[in-house]
Amino acid sequence: GDRQGGISSYAADEPCKRMMVYYHDILYNGGNTANATAAAATQPTALSRSVSINDTYFGQLVVFDDLVTADQAMSSEPVARAQGFYFYDKKESPNAWFSFSLVFNSTAYRGTLNLMGADLMGEKTRDLSVVGGTGDFFMARGVATISTDSVEGFYYFRLKMDIKLYECYV
Amino acid sequence: GDRQGGISSYAADEPCKRMMVYYHDILYNGGNTANATAAAATQPTALSRSVSINDTYFGQLVVFDDLVTADQAMSSEPVARAQGFYFYDKKESPNAWFSFSLVFNSTAYRGTLNLMGADLMGEKTRDLSVVGGTGDFFMARGVATISTDSVEGFYYFRLKMDIKLYECYV
Amino acid sequence: GDRQGGISSYAADEPCKRMMVYYHDILYNGGNTANATAAAATQPTALSRSVSINDTYFGQLVVFDDLVTADQAMSSEPVARAQGFYFYDKKESPNAWFSFSLVFNSTAYRGTLNLMGADLMGEKTRDLSVVGGTGDFFMARGVATISTDSVEGFYYFRLKMDIKLYECYV
Repeated sequence: GDRQGGISSYAADEPCKRMMVYYHDILYNGGNTANATAAAATQPTALSRSVSINDTYFGQLVVFDDLVTADQAMSSEPVARAQGFYFYDKKESPNAWFSFSLVFNSTAYRGTLNLMGADLMGEKTRDLSVVGGTGDFFMARGVATISTDSVEGFYYFRLKMDIKLYECYV
Repeated sequence: GDRQGGISSYAADEPCKRMMVYYHDILYNGGNTANATAAAATQPTALSRSVSINDTYFGQLVVFDDLVTADQAMSSEPVARAQGFYFYDKKESPNAWFSFSLVFNSTAYRGTLNLMGADLMGEKTRDLSVVGGTGDFFMARGVATISTDSVEGFYYFRLKMDIKLYECYV
Repeated sequence: GDRQGGISSYAADEPCKRMMVYYHDILYNGGNTANATAAAATQPTALSRSVSINDTYFGQLVVFDDLVTADQAMSSEPVARAQGFYFYDKKESPNAWFSFSLVFNSTAYRGTLNLMGADLMGEKTRDLSVVGGTGDFFMARGVATISTDSVEGFYYFRLKMDIKLYECYV
C-alpha cells in the first residue's frame, strides 16, 4: 500500500510551490457594466438589517469571475481568473465564506486550483484550504493565506493571496 | 518522490484525531433576531411545492454561522462556529447538501476544518468529507459522520457530528 | 511520521479507479414537474442581460438531484445521483462552476464522491477536482474530466464524466 509518484513536500515551512497574487473584486452596482466582474445573486436577508445599523449583508451571495494579477495594480500582469462565489454569513459583523477556482491559462501555467474556506474578516490574515488542482496543478493541496489589501467604497476590494502548496505532483 | 512530514494514520478504524460535537441550527423566522444564527437566502422553488403537500424546500439555500458545542445542550462548552451553507436538493423528500468551515478559536484549538457533502436525510447516518484544514488542523482530511439529533418545529435542528481525521500533520 | 493504509496509485497515467458515466440535467421549466431534477434557485442578475443579447445567465444558481447513468440514454443503467449545484459566473459568455456529490447506492458501490471546480464551457474538455469520498470511496481523491455530450434547448443537457481517482483506500 504505498503511494507512487511525486509529492515533493509536506512540511509547513517548506511549500513545494508558492505564489503571491492579488484578487480584484469589482461588484456590479447597476452602472459599471463594462468593469464589473462580480454580481450579487441574492439580497441580504432581513436578519442582516434587523441587528445592525450598518448592514452586515448576512445571506448576500455574490458570484464572480474576478481578475487575479501578479501585483497590486489591476493593470499588472494577469495571472489567473478567480471563478466562484462568496457570501456573508454573520449577523453581528461582516464575515464571509468563499469557494472558487483559480483558472490559469498563460504561458506560465495551464490548469486550476480549487479553494474553499472561511474569510474571517475580523482577522488580519485568514487561511483558506486549497483542496484540489488540475492540469499543471494536478492533485495539488495546500493553504492560501489571504488578507484585505484595499477596500474602495462598496464596489471594490482587493485581497492579497499567499498560496502555499504542500502537495505537488512533479 | 516521497512525502515528507508527519501523517499519522490512514486506516479506517484508526483516525489520527476524533471529535464528537453537536451543531445547532437556529433559522431566522422573522422574530427570533437575537437567537437566530441562520437565514434563508433563497425561497424554495415552485418545483418543490408542485410535487408535495409537505413542501420539500427544493432550492432553498440557508446561510449560517451556527454554534457547535461539546454536548447536546446549547449551553454546554462551545467548541467552534460552523460557517457556511446548506440547501435542499430533492423534490420528492427533504434532502440537503452542506459545505462549511468549522472555525475553532479556543484554548484547545485554533484553526479551521473545511467540509462538504450530501446530507442524505432519509438515512440514519451519513458521511461528509473533511477536505482540508488550517492552523491546528493544517492539511487535515477525513470523514464526518452526521446524524439528526433533534428537530424542534421548523426553526431548530441539531446534528451530532462524529469527526474522524485520517490525515493529520503532527 | 509515515502514512499507513493503502493508497494504490498517484501517477497521472495510472488511476487506481476509473469510471465513465453520464450526467443528465433536466431543468424545471414550470411544466415538467414529473421529469425535472434541477431548478433555478436564483435568477440571472441584471449584469448578465446588460452585456449580451444572448443572456449569459450570470448569477443564476441551479440546485440539482440529477441522474447519472452508465451510458448516454437516460434509460441505461443508473449509476448514481449527482446532488449539488452549479451557477453561471461570466458576463461575456456562458461559463459555470459546479460543486456536488455523486451518491452511489447500488450493488456495485455504496458511498459518495465529492467534486468541485470550474466548468469552462468554452473548452472541449475541462477538469473538476474530486476532493473527497466516503463509503466505498473512503478518502478518495482525483480528477473528473467532463465534456458536453448533448444540449437540447434550454432545459436539458448531458455531460460525459471521466472520473479518475489517484488516491484510493484499498
